[in-house]
Amino acid sequence: MNFTLLCKKCGKVYPMITYYWKCPSCNFPFNLITQLSKFNQFNQIIDKNERGLWRYRKLIPFSEGLVTLGEGNTPIVEMKDEGVILKLEYFSPTGSFKDRGAAVSLSRAKFMGVGSIVEDSSGNAGIAAAAYAAKANIRARIYVPKDAPSAKRMIIRACGAEIVECESRKDASIRAVSELRENELYVGHIWDAFYIEGIKTIAFEVFESGHIPDAIIVPVASGTLLLGLFKGFFELNEMGLLNNIPEFYAVQGEECAPIYEAIYGKIGGIKNSSLADGLRVDDPPRKDEILSVIRATSGDVFIVNNNEIMGALKFLYRKGIIVEPTSATAYAAFRKTRGLGKVLIPMTGTGIKTIDRLNLIFE
Amino acid sequence: MNFTLLCKKCGKVYPMITYYWKCPSCNFPFNLITQLSKFNQFNQIIDKNERGLWRYRKLIPFSEGLVTLGEGNTPIVEMKDEGVILKLEYFSPTGSFKDRGAAVSLSRAKFMGVGSIVEDSSGNAGIAAAAYAAKANIRARIYVPKDAPSAKRMIIRACGAEIVECESRKDASIRAVSELRENELYVGHIWDAFYIEGIKTIAFEVFESGHIPDAIIVPVASGTLLLGLFKGFFELNEMGLLNNIPEFYAVQGEECAPIYEAIYGKIGGIKNSSLADGLRVDDPPRKDEILSVIRATSGDVFIVNNNEIMGALKFLYRKGIIVEPTSATAYAAFRKTRGLGKVLIPMTGTGIKTIDRLNLIFE
Repeated sequence: MNFTLLCKKCGKVYPMITYYWKCPSCNFPFNLITQLSKFNQFNQIIDKNERGLWRYRKLIPFSEGLVTLGEGNTPIVEMKDEGVILKLEYFSPTGSFKDRGAAVSLSRAKFMGVGSIVEDSSGNAGIAAAAYAAKANIRARIYVPKDAPSAKRMIIRACGAEIVECESRKDASIRAVSELRENELYVGHIWDAFYIEGIKTIAFEVFESGHIPDAIIVPVASGTLLLGLFKGFFELNEMGLLNNIPEFYAVQGEECAPIYEAIYGKIGGIKNSSLADGLRVDDPPRKDEILSVIRATSGDVFIVNNNEIMGALKFLYRKGIIVEPTSATAYAAFRKTRGLGKVLIPMTGTGIKTIDRLNLIFE
Repeated sequence: MNFTLLCKKCGKVYPMITYYWKCPSCNFPFNLITQLSKFNQFNQIIDKNERGLWRYRKLIPFSEGLVTLGEGNTPIVEMKDEGVILKLEYFSPTGSFKDRGAAVSLSRAKFMGVGSIVEDSSGNAGIAAAAYAAKANIRARIYVPKDAPSAKRMIIRACGAEIVECESRKDASIRAVSELRENELYVGHIWDAFYIEGIKTIAFEVFESGHIPDAIIVPVASGTLLLGLFKGFFELNEMGLLNNIPEFYAVQGEECAPIYEAIYGKIGGIKNSSLADGLRVDDPPRKDEILSVIRATSGDVFIVNNNEIMGALKFLYRKGIIVEPTSATAYAAFRKTRGLGKVLIPMTGTGIKTIDRLNLIFE
């Protein structure tokens, strides 16, 4: 396949190997466009002897599987009574879907021969970046807000990454790019176009399993999960393999809901969604793209509060589905809908990382 | 296939559906014997449209996949520089290989229509039993020592299981069976013959992947992992699909090493293997079976101490392999060997559950 890295705002094309992570003229995030051929069967383009992401390597740039920790190929569990399909993304090297993105970003970094990668995150993305950098034998520096859970910081450090403590999540984002040195690649998941190439393989796996949904409900912070899933289904459609792209429903906590507010206006009253703290990106760089996906697929956006998240989380645990509260936000939104047809919800990450918060929930 | 449940000591055959978990005359653990035919290709006996355990359902009793949470089908990662293959068993519903055993035990329990299951464990096995019982909609009572980590107890409770606190690990084992009520099935992994049927599928997956090892290094407490792996390779051999069964190397911490001591005699001097606390079964009911496997395959047994475990754990983290100290015991033993040929090590469980102990290790 041919890949093109471009800025959709000014139309300028950039080389695939660049230390820029956004258009230097427009400050706009890059998009990666795959020039696709038509196929009669998905089989024609799959590497059948591979598993996980690398099964779809022909559709992924820098996909020689340079850096892999066994990511992808996650199970699908059908909850028949509830009428929903769960894609269990917590079956993964560091316990979240972020591993797919990190696998592609770090494979590119390794191909480029960078000296160090830099990421900003307080949680799953930071752990994924640290683990894949370790595997790639590339140094990593992770900028984390000072209130990041100590357990998560410990895993990052245990993988050999350097941690830089910052005043806030926002400050971490600012410092990560302003303190970049020569030969250091910024792979921040909020910006990185290559990250999305890893995430899109979830859609390929869902398609290959035959469980094609009518609707997908996705927690949204920076939007990599929603955009990756959409890109995967969009490419299947482009290749002539899938007629209809599923409807995309975004979910946010009511305390931080830029996508919801862009459509429905400011949320008033008392807000209480501290359990959705995995979804706190005030001003996602790809906000317009997220809104386009929702509109183009006739989807919608939901907000949820702590009560609803707690209810969903309890329910999932009582079915043996041990996930983080972020995954429960999407299940909580699912409970507020009806008649969407076959619904798919990605279970974003393991509940083992957030177990210390269960006291609050279950006592 | 035909399955026979028997006591190897007195030779008596028991029905497959029984509330006994050991021979009531001999107090000897049951063995499950599968009467196998010869095949030319493994493909002839695999359910190709299934994934995980249920791909091999013809070789498993009560295998209609009654209770599943997406277990099995774990990745294999080759560490070429180190000359070892890792089977990543932490890609699983509750983060450890125990999920395979619980899937079969609870599938049987569901088939039997039991009112409640009972297990004794302080860790991974208790969590697996609680999660699968939740999925099966069967009540669960887990006997745990009072010093079990609170995070693990919290997950068990979050899945809706009842916890009974006991004075010690030994006391938990005693009370679990002495307090059994009518219509309650004891599925204790230390005894349960059906548990091993789930574990043996690791061998089938390894075989199907084509990575057939010369040697396997396995942490041993009650021995379910070693015995399950052996049973899998033994059955492949019986079916005429595999010529040589790999050599089996057991690993124990020096503080609790009944298998090592049975071969090499009492360990003297100062012992220090607190990090191997996942391997504390003083007197495993299947000790003789474990010893037979080691002898029959020309294997051996290793002991490791905290220094060695810490070294191995650090090394694995620095490769992005985030595992519990128990997995590191096997890697530590691997580092003390040479010339075993192709070596396989199962990575038993996720390091995320034990992250609170990393302070001790990495500070």
